[in-house]
Amino acid sequence: MAEKALVGILMGSDSDLPVMEEAAKVLKNFNIPFEMTISSAHRTPHRTAQFARNAEKRGIRVIIAGAGSAAHLAGFIAAETTLPVIGVPIDASPLNGLDALLSTVQMPGGVPVASMAIGKAGAKNAGIFAVQILSTADEKLHEELKKYRKEMAKQVEEKAKKLKAQIG
Amino acid sequence: MAEKALVGILMGSDSDLPVMEEAAKVLKNFNIPFEMTISSAHRTPHRTAQFARNAEKRGIRVIIAGAGSAAHLAGFIAAETTLPVIGVPIDASPLNGLDALLSTVQMPGGVPVASMAIGKAGAKNAGIFAVQILSTADEKLHEELKKYRKEMAKQVEEKAKKLKAQIG
Amino acid sequence: MAEKALVGILMGSDSDLPVMEEAAKVLKNFNIPFEMTISSAHRTPHRTAQFARNAEKRGIRVIIAGAGSAAHLAGFIAAETTLPVIGVPIDASPLNGLDALLSTVQMPGGVPVASMAIGKAGAKNAGIFAVQILSTADEKLHEELKKYRKEMAKQVEEKAKKLKAQIG
Amino acid sequence: MAEKALVGILMGSDSDLPVMEEAAKVLKNFNIPFEMTISSAHRTPHRTAQFARNAEKRGIRVIIAGAGSAAHLAGFIAAETTLPVIGVPIDASPLNGLDALLSTVQMPGGVPVASMAIGKAGAKNAGIFAVQILSTADEKLHEELKKYRKEMAKQVEEKAKKLKAQIG
Amino acid sequence: MAEKALVGILMGSDSDLPVMEEAAKVLKNFNIPFEMTISSAHRTPHRTAQFARNAEKRGIRVIIAGAGSAAHLAGFIAAETTLPVIGVPIDASPLNGLDALLSTVQMPGGVPVASMAIGKAGAKNAGIFAVQILSTADEKLHEELKKYRKEMAKQVEEKAKKLKAQIG
Amino acid sequence: MAEKALVGILMGSDSDLPVMEEAAKVLKNFNIPFEMTISSAHRTPHRTAQFARNAEKRGIRVIIAGAGSAAHLAGFIAAETTLPVIGVPIDASPLNGLDALLSTVQMPGGVPVASMAIGKAGAKNAGIFAVQILSTADEKLHEELKKYRKEMAKQVEEKAKKLKAQIG
Amino acid sequence: MAEKALVGILMGSDSDLPVMEEAAKVLKNFNIPFEMTISSAHRTPHRTAQFARNAEKRGIRVIIAGAGSAAHLAGFIAAETTLPVIGVPIDASPLNGLDALLSTVQMPGGVPVASMAIGKAGAKNAGIFAVQILSTADEKLHEELKKYRKEMAKQVEEKAKKLKAQIG
Amino acid sequence: MAEKALVGILMGSDSDLPVMEEAAKVLKNFNIPFEMTISSAHRTPHRTAQFARNAEKRGIRVIIAGAGSAAHLAGFIAAETTLPVIGVPIDASPLNGLDALLSTVQMPGGVPVASMAIGKAGAKNAGIFAVQILSTADEKLHEELKKYRKEMAKQVEEKAKKLKAQIG
Repeated sequence: MAEKALVGILMGSDSDLPVMEEAAKVLKNFNIPFEMTISSAHRTPHRTAQFARNAEKRGIRVIIAGAGSAAHLAGFIAAETTLPVIGVPIDASPLNGLDALLSTVQMPGGVPVASMAIGKAGAKNAGIFAVQILSTADEKLHEELKKYRKEMAKQVEEKAKKLKAQIG
Repeated sequence: MAEKALVGILMGSDSDLPVMEEAAKVLKNFNIPFEMTISSAHRTPHRTAQFARNAEKRGIRVIIAGAGSAAHLAGFIAAETTLPVIGVPIDASPLNGLDALLSTVQMPGGVPVASMAIGKAGAKNAGIFAVQILSTADEKLHEELKKYRKEMAKQVEEKAKKLKAQIG
Repeated sequence: MAEKALVGILMGSDSDLPVMEEAAKVLKNFNIPFEMTISSAHRTPHRTAQFARNAEKRGIRVIIAGAGSAAHLAGFIAAETTLPVIGVPIDASPLNGLDALLSTVQMPGGVPVASMAIGKAGAKNAGIFAVQILSTADEKLHEELKKYRKEMAKQVEEKAKKLKAQIG
Repeated sequence: MAEKALVGILMGSDSDLPVMEEAAKVLKNFNIPFEMTISSAHRTPHRTAQFARNAEKRGIRVIIAGAGSAAHLAGFIAAETTLPVIGVPIDASPLNGLDALLSTVQMPGGVPVASMAIGKAGAKNAGIFAVQILSTADEKLHEELKKYRKEMAKQVEEKAKKLKAQIG
Repeated sequence: MAEKALVGILMGSDSDLPVMEEAAKVLKNFNIPFEMTISSAHRTPHRTAQFARNAEKRGIRVIIAGAGSAAHLAGFIAAETTLPVIGVPIDASPLNGLDALLSTVQMPGGVPVASMAIGKAGAKNAGIFAVQILSTADEKLHEELKKYRKEMAKQVEEKAKKLKAQIG
Repeated sequence: MAEKALVGILMGSDSDLPVMEEAAKVLKNFNIPFEMTISSAHRTPHRTAQFARNAEKRGIRVIIAGAGSAAHLAGFIAAETTLPVIGVPIDASPLNGLDALLSTVQMPGGVPVASMAIGKAGAKNAGIFAVQILSTADEKLHEELKKYRKEMAKQVEEKAKKLKAQIG
Repeated sequence: MAEKALVGILMGSDSDLPVMEEAAKVLKNFNIPFEMTISSAHRTPHRTAQFARNAEKRGIRVIIAGAGSAAHLAGFIAAETTLPVIGVPIDASPLNGLDALLSTVQMPGGVPVASMAIGKAGAKNAGIFAVQILSTADEKLHEELKKYRKEMAKQVEEKAKKLKAQIG
Repeated sequence: MAEKALVGILMGSDSDLPVMEEAAKVLKNFNIPFEMTISSAHRTPHRTAQFARNAEKRGIRVIIAGAGSAAHLAGFIAAETTLPVIGVPIDASPLNGLDALLSTVQMPGGVPVASMAIGKAGAKNAGIFAVQILSTADEKLHEELKKYRKEMAKQVEEKAKKLKAQIG
């Protein structure tokens, strides 16, 4: 990560790491420089606000924020920057992530958060969506996205073949 | 409100006023000096953080915060002060306040918000709970609370009498 | 709309127009050329797929899709393009938009949709988020976004003043 | 499966196989020729649309589609064919299949999907319902269905006897 | 309705008529002879069981059953016949039809009900799905279904044109 | 069980036995003769209807019915008898028993089911409630109920003492 | 109501009267002497406890309790008496009665409440269920219940006839 | 615990101890004398009412009450005292604590309960919130709270450092 990070990944707690790594994997796959850190909207609001306010100056172009329970992290950051913020609701309470989903997606008019699905699928998609945003101004990246899609489709087809072989 | 406010009432939008006035009515009834203002966690985060950080110095002892949708307001304030924060979830989206309730109550360990019920009942109870907090160190106020309770009980009894008269 | 549209707004039914106009208003406000049309994932899948497949060639850089009930529209489009797709769940069934929200946001890993809140707040935020995406490669637009935010904050402050004057 | 398939079973991912096999077991039991494959509404939309569009020509009379999360598969297929489509919501996300259920069942007016219960019970019933559809024009098959029901009733009665023996 | 009915429409209460008429309209449109009556699983179980048991003999090939609250009607009928039963959950209690949906769709393995969406959209789709079932053995009817689909698509396109004219 | 049963316990499937045994234990404890059998509303409707219709003649005075998923069993029985029917929703599907609860409790006006809590707590309470019903005409039994309550209270007090001893 | 009441109807607030009157109507219809009053678990706990503790001595045999929001009333009474308690959850908050339903029905093992459906249907059924309890020791009353059921069935049949006449 | 307890911790069952200990740990950490006992709203209502009524006289200033299912405990206590009552909903039924949350938080106007999050996070926060209430009249305690917050922030920062070291 010698290059300046274009995407910042934030999570509210170190227990969110196994989920948020899915976003990191996608960015690595596309060779997008990124940074990843822990900062809580509630336990370290100043650190989080600093991160959000300085992100643009540091060259960050998209922020991904994952949190559980009353997941305010993505909205908190969105209030402090005009960079696009992608939210990942994490299933970290007895309510199966419904609390995190509603806290992330139901933002009032004026300050958007782009919510992904709950958990690992959402974190992976947050990574892909960040690439999609960056690719709106980077044709080469956009071509790579298209290859990624084709590769994904191929995998489904191969699984279909395997199933066919299996059931005869 | 010549006296220095002991309770600060915040709401995320002016459309929350009809709900949050229920809290104000209770405080007036108990002669608790209070202040009431509008500040959004997402649209005016700095103003809101300032309010929260300065509250203690200004003599505020309890904060009541009401918001709808992804209701981060109470949690946002709780992150910036160690004063007790009471949250009122407001029914302001198609989800009937379930989003506001979960965003208010499901705070992660470390930064509590005392959540009340959704809507007017919750705002009224936020006012009463603020009085209860203040009365832990104010015996006279505690006596008034007890009278308030008795008065409330009397009203139920009168309604019961009226019903009895009605149904014979 | 003489200029080539940069944003495409789709909705599943003409009854979604009062909601989706909120997105259009934001884009007009930022002078972003856009197109807006009706196409259903279920009733006109070919038309919708055509729209999605040709969008990039026609110069579209972001797509906003709003639908109710089992809201597949945003996901359907996301499957046919690598442009970023923003989904707006619409409250159009007895379930208050919970069905549309889950159908929009719970996308499986690989094909992201950026979900906004249910209804008008979500449509407005979809417009703003589209501007945020475009602004990642357009500094002037980014400056306008910052002004928009300040204006929004000012409005909250003015409402706060008005409330203060009112309650004395 | 030398005979031409009358029922097509689709699933969005190979991880859905343990659930969807319940449908296959029922069809085998009734000697209904069927085919079973993997195709995703989002990762392989073209493959899925091809499957749906060609199904009728290939002799398919009923389609069963199972998917999890924002389960668009059954609706996607229903939009591409006028054959009856039976949807099986699969419990594949932290929301316990509620997302898949609402995405499958809440279809807008005009393009029906016949939703079954979440998970294995639903997949089994999808198989039975396909047989019921086919039996509307096949008296012999209808008689077999009646036997199947009687067999099922007998099993319950035997369990009741066993319980009686057990508790004396 | 001189011809022998092929589809039986049942509803639990006369208050369900405005919803269930949507199914009747579709059947009329396709010239499918049908009968429509009121019978409750709980208030007239014998009448309902009689209806279900005699349906096949009377020439009925598909049954549509709509009910609200703890909507047992479709399942009750499905237990008494091997004809395909389509269930329409009706929004008739404070829970917005969620109770009727779960009572209709979550059938245990062995006795399927094909659930449609809650309310009018579901009733309309029940009518269409009944036609789809009948058309699996009636090519002419299948052709009419395809025309119906095209007509539906045309209506969407016309609304799109109208919108385009409107927004210039 | 030489004596004629006063309470009939029904369950939809043998997999419900571990839950429904809680009701049986209570009845044994109070020496109430009961019978317990398996009968499904959907797989053995005739057997179930027979059970319900003959119950009164056989001397049954209260019926307890437990089922999962779209739990129609209690309502089905209530439609066939005027004896009091107690319903126990069982957590047997991915929806955690919410489906069984709503299917059991949301009965339409005219045919009541007395719903207990989901699962073992509900089954235990179904047993106790059956005793309470019988005790309205059996003073001795009523006295035993009061002892049972006192015993229960004593157990709580003993646990409290133990905790006190433990934490010093 | 010169006769000694056999059923006591309680409600938490006078605003619950339009719902709870449905229970009263049924009792009047069956000539069951009853009393009806207002008493809150939270605002008048002593009055409520007195009511519950004295009910048996006063000749009450069944208690019906209706409340909204965090509806503790039925459980509160059930804790103070061994008479059967029937709970009616009332739709009195933005959550459509889901809060009242769960607060009423999810009683822990040991102290049962017999929950009815939310709102008027539930109140009506509470009245009928009280009659069913009383009829377990009153054959004449049981006969009247059977007539009531037949009357109810007749009404459904008449509505069915009317519908038939209407649609020809 | 030689000193007179300032905080009373109650739980409905000994199975709630692992959750409620989180509140006790916080109070120990702040050297707040407390007492902890088991008392059920339903199984030992008299004992619970006694506890609540005598709390103030015994010097208790804040009460914390944790319960699961239809969690009436906090509301029951709040009805018997004017001391501030903090409720902890416990995940003790198949509904994942949603029942306990709604039963705790949705208190009607007049008798507030300050609800925390479901489970251990909520119990920990109940302890902190009790300290916050006490600190409104105890400056030294308030200073300790601020240190606690700083310590908490430091821990997040250290975890962030560790993550940075790890990912390089």
